[in-house]
Parts: sequence; C-alpha cells; structure tokens
Amino acid sequence: MQIALSAAEIADIVHPLSTKGATSVTVRGLASLATAQVGELAFLGNAKYGSEVAATAASVVLLPLGYAGEPGVNQLFLLVQNPSLALARVCARLEQALWPRPAPGVHASAVVAPGARVAASATVGPLCVVEEGAVVGERTHLQAQVFLGRNARVGDDCWLMPGVVVAAECELHERVRLHAGVVVGSDGFGYEFVAGRHEKVPQVGQVIVERDVEIGANSTLDRARFSRTVVGEGTKIDNLVQVAHNVVIGRHCLLCAQVGISGSTTLGDYVVMGGQSGLAGHLTVGRGAQIDGQSGVRTDLAPGSKAKGSPSLPFQLEQRINILRQRLPDLFRRVGEMEAEIARLKKSSAA
Amino acid sequence: MQIALSAAEIADIVHPLSTKGATSVTVRGLASLATAQVGELAFLGNAKYGSEVAATAASVVLLPLGYAGEPGVNQLFLLVQNPSLALARVCARLEQALWPRPAPGVHASAVVAPGARVAASATVGPLCVVEEGAVVGERTHLQAQVFLGRNARVGDDCWLMPGVVVAAECELHERVRLHAGVVVGSDGFGYEFVAGRHEKVPQVGQVIVERDVEIGANSTLDRARFSRTVVGEGTKIDNLVQVAHNVVIGRHCLLCAQVGISGSTTLGDYVVMGGQSGLAGHLTVGRGAQIDGQSGVRTDLAPGSKAKGSPSLPFQLEQRINILRQRLPDLFRRVGEMEAEIARLKKSSAA
Amino acid sequence: MQIALSAAEIADIVHPLSTKGATSVTVRGLASLATAQVGELAFLGNAKYGSEVAATAASVVLLPLGYAGEPGVNQLFLLVQNPSLALARVCARLEQALWPRPAPGVHASAVVAPGARVAASATVGPLCVVEEGAVVGERTHLQAQVFLGRNARVGDDCWLMPGVVVAAECELHERVRLHAGVVVGSDGFGYEFVAGRHEKVPQVGQVIVERDVEIGANSTLDRARFSRTVVGEGTKIDNLVQVAHNVVIGRHCLLCAQVGISGSTTLGDYVVMGGQSGLAGHLTVGRGAQIDGQSGVRTDLAPGSKAKGSPSLPFQLEQRINILRQRLPDLFRRVGEMEAEIARLKKSSAA
Repeated sequence: MQIALSAAEIADIVHPLSTKGATSVTVRGLASLATAQVGELAFLGNAKYGSEVAATAASVVLLPLGYAGEPGVNQLFLLVQNPSLALARVCARLEQALWPRPAPGVHASAVVAPGARVAASATVGPLCVVEEGAVVGERTHLQAQVFLGRNARVGDDCWLMPGVVVAAECELHERVRLHAGVVVGSDGFGYEFVAGRHEKVPQVGQVIVERDVEIGANSTLDRARFSRTVVGEGTKIDNLVQVAHNVVIGRHCLLCAQVGISGSTTLGDYVVMGGQSGLAGHLTVGRGAQIDGQSGVRTDLAPGSKAKGSPSLPFQLEQRINILRQRLPDLFRRVGEMEAEIARLKKSSAA
Repeated sequence: MQIALSAAEIADIVHPLSTKGATSVTVRGLASLATAQVGELAFLGNAKYGSEVAATAASVVLLPLGYAGEPGVNQLFLLVQNPSLALARVCARLEQALWPRPAPGVHASAVVAPGARVAASATVGPLCVVEEGAVVGERTHLQAQVFLGRNARVGDDCWLMPGVVVAAECELHERVRLHAGVVVGSDGFGYEFVAGRHEKVPQVGQVIVERDVEIGANSTLDRARFSRTVVGEGTKIDNLVQVAHNVVIGRHCLLCAQVGISGSTTLGDYVVMGGQSGLAGHLTVGRGAQIDGQSGVRTDLAPGSKAKGSPSLPFQLEQRINILRQRLPDLFRRVGEMEAEIARLKKSSAA
Repeated sequence: MQIALSAAEIADIVHPLSTKGATSVTVRGLASLATAQVGELAFLGNAKYGSEVAATAASVVLLPLGYAGEPGVNQLFLLVQNPSLALARVCARLEQALWPRPAPGVHASAVVAPGARVAASATVGPLCVVEEGAVVGERTHLQAQVFLGRNARVGDDCWLMPGVVVAAECELHERVRLHAGVVVGSDGFGYEFVAGRHEKVPQVGQVIVERDVEIGANSTLDRARFSRTVVGEGTKIDNLVQVAHNVVIGRHCLLCAQVGISGSTTLGDYVVMGGQSGLAGHLTVGRGAQIDGQSGVRTDLAPGSKAKGSPSLPFQLEQRINILRQRLPDLFRRVGEMEAEIARLKKSSAA
C-alpha cells in the first residue's frame, strides 16, 4: 500500500479521547504489535496481547482508554473507546486509497450492445462485454473483463471485479459486490436419463442476488430450472462456494469457503455454514441454524439448531460421539477383558 | 425472462389431449403451483402436490390426463400425457428465447491468429482469443472472452461460455458445452523432490473431451503428464469439479459439484459421484459404481458397487456403522454396567 | 502434440550410455509401455512394468542400464542411468514446442495504463489489462486476458495464464507460474455483526507470492485484512485451493486440489496437505507436518506430525480407530452376548 498518513491525520480519523507521547514519523503501513516497525500503526484489539505493547516498534498505537503504559521515544499512543473499530476506520480510509472511485463512463475497449442501458454515473471498465438489454445501475463499477449477458440487470452501487460473469436474465440488486471470477447464472445440473443417456433439462430460470450481498472469488451460482435461485439481502458468501439451481438463501447468512448447497434447498435468515460443509438437495434449514465445517447435512434443520459431522448429527451429540470414538481402542480392550472374566466365572460356577 | 406466450401458443407447444376453461392472460413466466401468480404457467409433476392445483393463481396449468378438478375464472387447464415432459418442451422454447442462436462470424474485437481455422458457420464472440493452429468447428459458439490455445481443436456445435479457457493442444469433440470459467488443459500437479525443492515434471499431454459432454462453471481439467486426460462421451460434470492429470472418465458418468478426482484414476461408464466426494489416485472404478456425497474412496471399486464414507466402505456397511456409531453413548453405558455386574459376581462367587 | 523427433534427436536429448537396435520411425508422441503404438516413445520407470517391455509397440524405449531384453524389428532401446529423468528431459523439449517463448512486447489489444512499467523483454498478450502503477518484470509473460490491478508487481520470468487476476497492491516474486483463472488478492472474508447485519471489515492488506511458486487453475488467495497473506518460496498449490486472509504458508509446501486454509493460520516449511483437506483458522502447523486427504484440522500440529480424519487425530490413532469402527457390528454383538451370559450367571449364582 502506498499510504502516507501523519499522526495528525490519523488522530483526525479515529478521534482519540486522549493521547500520550508524540511522533514525527509518517505512517506508511499497518501491522500487528509484534511485527510492526517504525513508520507503522498497530492496535491492541485483544487484552491478551497487552504485554506486546511495551515492546512494539510501531510509531502509532491504538489503545483502549484504560491502558496504563507509556509510549517510547518518537511514539504516539491514541487512546480510544474501541481500538478495533478505530482501526477499521483507518482501514476504510486506506481502502479509498487502494480503490479510488473510478471516473464514470464506458472504456473505449468495452463492447456494449446498442440496446444496453448504462447509467451515466456508472463505470464500465476495459474489455467488458455488456449484451443487448442489460442494465447497469447508478455508480456501479464493472472493473474489467466483466461479462453481462442479455437482459442481465445490475442495480445501483454494485462492484463487479475482473472476470465476473452475470449470465442472461440474472439480477443483482443494490450494493452487491462480486469478487473476481464469480459466475452468476450458469446452468443448473439437471438431466433426465433416457435410453442410456443423460438428456439435458433446459434451465431457463434466473438468479436473483439481493442488496448488500458480497460473493467471494470463483464462486458459482446456478440459474433455476425455471423460477428463481435467490441469495437474500445482506448474505455474505466466501470463495469457491457452489449454490445449485433453485436454492433459496435467506437474509444475512454466512457461507464460508468451499461450501456446497444442492438443488432446491432453502435456508432461513442468519444461517451460518462452516468451510467445506455441504447441504443435500430439497432440504429446509431453519433460521439461525449453524452448520459446522466439513459437515454434510441430509435432513431438515430446525431453527437455531446446530449440526456437525458427515452425515450430520446435533452438534452436542456429535461432539460426544467423537470423544467416545477416540476411546474405541480402550473399549475393545475392556470388552475383551470382560469376555475373559465371564469365561472364568462360568468355569468356576460350573465347577 | 422476457417471455410472452398466449394460451394458444402454449397449446401449440404441448399439444394437449384435452382442455378445460380458458384464459385471456398472456403467460410471462413459470412457477410452482404454490407460488404462481396471474400470468404464470404451473404444472402438476408429482401427485403429492395435487391439492395445490385448486388454490393456484397460475393462468395456465399443465395437468395429467385424469385430473378431475375444474379451473377457476380466467384459468386454462391443459391435460397432457406427461406434464413434466410438456413443461420441458415449454422450457426448451424459452431457452431459444433466452439464448437465441447468434449470427455466425468473428466479432471485430476478437483476436484470432492468422493460422487458426474458424468454420464459416461458427461464432467467435467479443474479446475472444484464438491462437495459432486452433480449430473452431461448424456452428460452434465461443460466447465472449473465451481463450483457445495453440492447436486447440473444438468440434462442431459446441458452446463455450464467457471466460472459458481451452489450453494448447486440447480437444473438444461435438456438442460439448462448457460453462463460464471452465479451464481445460491446466498443468497436472507433478513434481520431483530434488535437493529440498519440488522440481516441476513437465506436463505435455492433452485433454480430450468427447462429444455431448457438459462441464459446469469454474471446473478444472488438467492435461496429462504425457498422453491424455479423457472425459468420455455424454458425461456431465457439475461446477467446481477437479479432474487431475491422466484421469480417464468413461461415458455417461455424472460428477456432482466440488468432486475431486486424483491423478491417473480411471472411471468406467455410468459412474455417479455425489457432491464433494473424492477419489484417490491410480484407482479403477468399475462401470456403474455409485459414490455417495462427501465420500473419500481409496480403493478400487467393483462394477456396480456403492461406496460411502471417508475412507469409504460398502454403502450398506457404512450405513449400518453410522447407526451403531450413534449408539456409542449407550454402548459405553452398557459396558460400564457390565463391568460393575461382573465385579459383583466375582465378589459373590469368591464369597 | 505436433512433435516429430528422429531417433538421433532423442539420443541427443537423453545421452544414452548404450543402445540396442535401431528405428527409422519418427517419434510423434509419448505413451505408456502398454498403450504405445509405432511412432511413440515409452519408458520403463518402475521395475514392476518390466514384463511390458517385450510386448510394447513403441518405436523408442528408454530403459535402465541393466535391462537385458532385446528390441524388436525397427525398434530402438536407449539405455540410461535413470529412464524417468531421461523422459523428463524429452518432455522439457516438448514443452518448448508446445509453449514456445512468445515475442516480447505489448499486444495491440492490451490495455496498459500509462503509469504501468512493463519490462522491454516481457510479453503482455492480447486483451490483458495492466492498471496504473503495476510492474511487469523481465521476460515475464502475461498470456492473454490477464488482469493486473493498481500497483501490482510481477517479478521476472513469471508466467500468468489466461484469465488470471492479480489485484491491486499484490506482489509476485520471480518465476511464479499462475494457471488459468487464479485470483490473487480477493478480499478476505471478514465482517462485524452490528445491529442484525454483517458489516464489512475493510481488507486492505496484500498477498505476497514468493519465487518459484506455482498455483493451479481457479485457486483463490485472499488479501490480508492489513499486513500480508504469504505463500513461501517454492510452494506448489494445485487447482481450486482456497487460501484465506492473513494465512502464511512456508517454503516448499504442497497443497493438493480443493484444499482450504482458514484465516490467519500459519504453515511451516515442507507441509503437505492432501486433496480436499482443510485447516481451521488461527492455527500453527509445524514444519514438515502431513495432513491426509479430506482431513479437517482444528488444532495446532507439531513439526513432523501426521494428521488424519475430521476432526483430525494423529495418523496412526485415526487409522486404528477406523479399523475398530469397522468392527462395531461385531462389538455390539459381543456386548449383547455378554449381557445374556451375565444374566445367566446372575440367575445361576442366585439359584
């Protein structure tokens, strides 16, 4: 990052409640307390790292209000209510530097069909393709090499990164953020087995991605057989996630990397799925359900339930069974001993 | 979808054996019985949803011949032999509307090497790259931003969606359909460990994708070390699937999303792999074998066998063990009780 | 492959210690002993295939020095110290034919910002985008449709294949090889839960990919929240692998396909992860640790340790438990029999 913030500029961003010390050094980076060097900013976000503050070389340190230590030479302590939040504000400022808002307009190398509608405030970057009937909303940014198919609709304030594909007829609502390589609207995986061959079932539905959704790099979302595959408002999806046709994901869910959701499964709001977990098809997962990493769920889940394992069980039961499983060598030994004991008892009782 | 079909046009597609009622509404979408609104088409594909017909708002409903109920006001029932097949015919019509056959020719923005051979009836869409020696067959469609490497050969009637990469020397036969982001011909993962470093083993083989294969978004197929990685005729591969170097997949297999197949493994015809399952390297999987979702197979599988679990066991055995596993808490309790009982018996027999 | 090597040219590549027989056939391909045809080269890399040499139709065969058999008509045996290494040399020659070094220069269709610095010996292929401040090193090859974001830095002798994305501020050192569709520098998956919504934590760090790293098709590496996500020198990553934000991977590791590593986890040098395995977040994995395919690791691993299972256990223990698990049906039977036996003993002792 090519950042350069003076101590005064940082103070202006985080509004410290009090300060200790001073520094003349310009901040050019962020780092953890342990690894920071002169010219970097660090923060104490978790009390367990408190002992690292005294030794840090960071020129500026964000600290909680009650922090008692004193800064070193040419070092500034900024005492704030919530150092983690203060850091997030500094990061947001850096984000603007990293990713400055591009100038509106269509790059000369982009291929935009005459019948596409691109808002005047939108940016269509180099080598994008926007097909007939597609719509690009206000202030939306197609960064580069993005593809929008026929009649695809992208709402206001979206950001589509390089290589994103939004296929024909699919819709993104406001403030959707798609990372590089995301595919929205590939065909669902549906075939009929006829005379020894898999015949394709046409997939003519849409994908609807509601507002404030973010989707990680190279994830794939299939269009519905007909009707809609839906990702609800505010849901966040990590990288390399598969969402099959006719899946309906509720609002504010979290799907970690490499999750797979099979066709026609429905998730309520606030569902959380750990990395590499999977859901079978045609399931209903209740609001707030939590699915542990690498789990494989093949049954409906009640609201608020927690599932773990493959095939999954209720979380606590699976935890308990996992512990007992580790005791199997001991159990087999105990059973063997009992068998010997019983044989002895039989013998002596027969005697 | 921007569809608009009159009742008469739909009847013309599905050829009803009889009709009940009538509607003046133009059909603009498809939906399930429960969610359909006025202006939509619904169908009864499964008798268990029969009770939903009376309440549906759909303007046109496809029903099996024996259906006894009566339509509502401004509602048309079309009675057919097989409502699911009738729907597929309507979808096929919609598919033509969604994805009209593009005009043949090479888009002005595409970069096609002088020594490439593109059939006159083929379409090379915007911003594609076709390298020296590559061949594009009759009526084949490179949609946009597709890459064909040196001497890559794409057969007749193929469809390569945006962002597809077919690397040098790889071949697709007729009617192959590759969804967005598919990579055919990345290097196999092969190294020799020499003096503390992994030295690359050159990967100079091909990938051959036989006719009527469809591959889902962002799946990857590695070229062979030498010789060929093969996907057999009619096989269907879902999204985010990994096929390693020198794998040979038979005909008419189904690989669900996020499957991984390790190097040099061979699959017979009609093999089915559930989502997120994996095969170790150098295995032989017999014709018609079925591998359950999330399974991890490390042994050869006989033709027709069913495998489940990680590491996998025969399906029935794994199912049984999974049930017993859930009874481990009870088993530990029973063993504890027996130990106490045996101790008592020993004491009394000693007394 | 369009290769054509005479027997003399092959001998010139592999420098045989002695030869037997002769052939007039031009070699046009490589194959295994069992499948080779006239005009192909085969090799005996593993003594267990020795019996296949006599029957092979290959025109040229690479054999270990001590091989006793005689060639057939019009067949040449080349006896070498290490047939596998000799083959690798032939493959390396083929590699040059498959992928000839492109001419330096920027293709007319590429979009390169005025402030980007492209070395004179580098190749920027068709339809690439190189943003402001980006740097492309000597002899580096951006093949086609590659994206380099603002201030991204690519070292000397790198090769970025079609569709690769290296986002703003990320760095590749020397001789890095990224296969098609790789994304370096997508945002980390980080949110704060505030008032019922997931608010984005800005991700403003970098990704650093050190020299001699190779990364497989469609893999994704997230930028750090702040500071760096790192892939150490010489590490090799297969296809569809996910590396989350702030992960630090040591040198000379091997990550097989579909591996996932969660945020802030650190791997020492020479770690090996089998296909589809995963690491939870904030872990430390010691040098040389080995993680079996499909394992899920949730605890730190000591240097040199081997882990297996989900959740993982030490390899030997997990192996043993897996065997005992298969004996559960038998164990349940034995416990049932013991219970009956004890009941009988109680009865007889009470009698």
